[in-house]
Amino acid sequence: MLTPQGGGPSQDGLKRVAAHRAVELVRSGMVLGLGTGSTAVHALDRIGALLRTGHLRDVVGIPTSEWAAACAAAAGIPLTDLNAHPVVDLSIDGADEVDPALNLVKGRGGSLLREKMVEGASRRFVVIVDESKLVPRLGASGLAVPVEVIPFGWALTLRRLRTLFDRVPGFNIKLRTAATNAKASAFDESESKSEPFVTDNKNYIVDLFFEDGIHGDLNLISDEILRITGVIEHGMFLGLASSVIIARKDGVVVVDKAAKVNGM
Amino acid sequence: MLTPQGGGPSQDGLKRVAAHRAVELVRSGMVLGLGTGSTAVHALDRIGALLRTGHLRDVVGIPTSEWAAACAAAAGIPLTDLNAHPVVDLSIDGADEVDPALNLVKGRGGSLLREKMVEGASRRFVVIVDESKLVPRLGASGLAVPVEVIPFGWALTLRRLRTLFDRVPGFNIKLRTAATNAKASAFDESESKSEPFVTDNKNYIVDLFFEDGIHGDLNLISDEILRITGVIEHGMFLGLASSVIIARKDGVVVVDKAAKVNGM
Repeated sequence: MLTPQGGGPSQDGLKRVAAHRAVELVRSGMVLGLGTGSTAVHALDRIGALLRTGHLRDVVGIPTSEWAAACAAAAGIPLTDLNAHPVVDLSIDGADEVDPALNLVKGRGGSLLREKMVEGASRRFVVIVDESKLVPRLGASGLAVPVEVIPFGWALTLRRLRTLFDRVPGFNIKLRTAATNAKASAFDESESKSEPFVTDNKNYIVDLFFEDGIHGDLNLISDEILRITGVIEHGMFLGLASSVIIARKDGVVVVDKAAKVNGM
Repeated sequence: MLTPQGGGPSQDGLKRVAAHRAVELVRSGMVLGLGTGSTAVHALDRIGALLRTGHLRDVVGIPTSEWAAACAAAAGIPLTDLNAHPVVDLSIDGADEVDPALNLVKGRGGSLLREKMVEGASRRFVVIVDESKLVPRLGASGLAVPVEVIPFGWALTLRRLRTLFDRVPGFNIKLRTAATNAKASAFDESESKSEPFVTDNKNYIVDLFFEDGIHGDLNLISDEILRITGVIEHGMFLGLASSVIIARKDGVVVVDKAAKVNGM
């Protein structure tokens, strides 16, 4: 059913395969973290379907964005929040990039802060991707590594972020605009006059672009970014993923942190 | 004029003495960072008076809060912002605590983020205090060390901050409410049902209380706080002050970073 006839599954079909595999981990009574984006929506739809048929019950979800809240409500998933449920049993979400150590880049959709809060509060965080998201190192896709910043003084914050990476060849940085949000590519300046993109938390996003990915100790780089006044959070998710479910054209691969630690 | 007859200057008189001494550093043409609070307001009033009499001209100010903006406007100081002037010549502001290394606690008034942005962007940052603000180590006054946090998931963020300090004897932590903002004392629970205090950036403040101040490497503790998802910034200003002007009952003392480095 998930594999269209001829030529193997589409990219969206692969996303759905990974999402459905992740939903097999959901048990009745769980508090779930509900991801945001074109992959996570397949998980929301699947959970909703299982609730309707009675295969799951007493599940509550904490959405990682207003968008996820709307999709989950449409799918019939009862919603709660982190203040009511500070411990989440299982989060399922997509990612923009996955490196060999299961570090992620997330937030090209603009929801990185809420995603990191919910997924960081989860006993288990399962990432669902198609194989196009695998990278040798974070940033290596050439697409945005987002940083959420306070609107007050954003130009100064951007300048400090630029200074942090100014010796990296091919580094680029720009304020995300409402027009460029969906694509977030490094060299499209045509929309640069439009309004800043505003997150669910009413902040801005500064996108970092690395021609060859981020070299160096990611934890140190994370600290350097977070030290900049005006920075709230960045889209590198370091050590947070418990497992990654990768849908490839030739099948599904599950990599989990324990396996990785045990010699992958 | 600044010393009332009998018994020496009042605490407010001391604040004014320190503020006027700092304003002696202001030159025509400067971009100024304008502080927030009961000490900084004396500097705003003084700069306004010097502009009116023509002793200063072409000065523009970047306010560190909506409150400072209103006070500066009332004093007749032309206002600008960090995006127009990313480099500030001189900032003048009060502090809640000053330690022997000129590290500060700021933000009991709730403006720590904008203060840190403006003052961190300043070539010179002069702190004005009366002697009651001197402490052997940060937090030692027993009053709040504030942390600005995102409203989303604030209870989880508070829990993580508590975990960070849970081995510190006498540590206490609470969400700042609108009712407790002015005093921010550790053990006043009577107003805990009231609405959260909201910063100029529409965030919340979590106040940390240390019975005996903060022991340990402040830079490491800063990193640990900033790593918590949901934390935006804290009120420890480490290495940012260029000079501290201390008004004491027996006179004014100026301590600057260079002097400190050279053996104070």
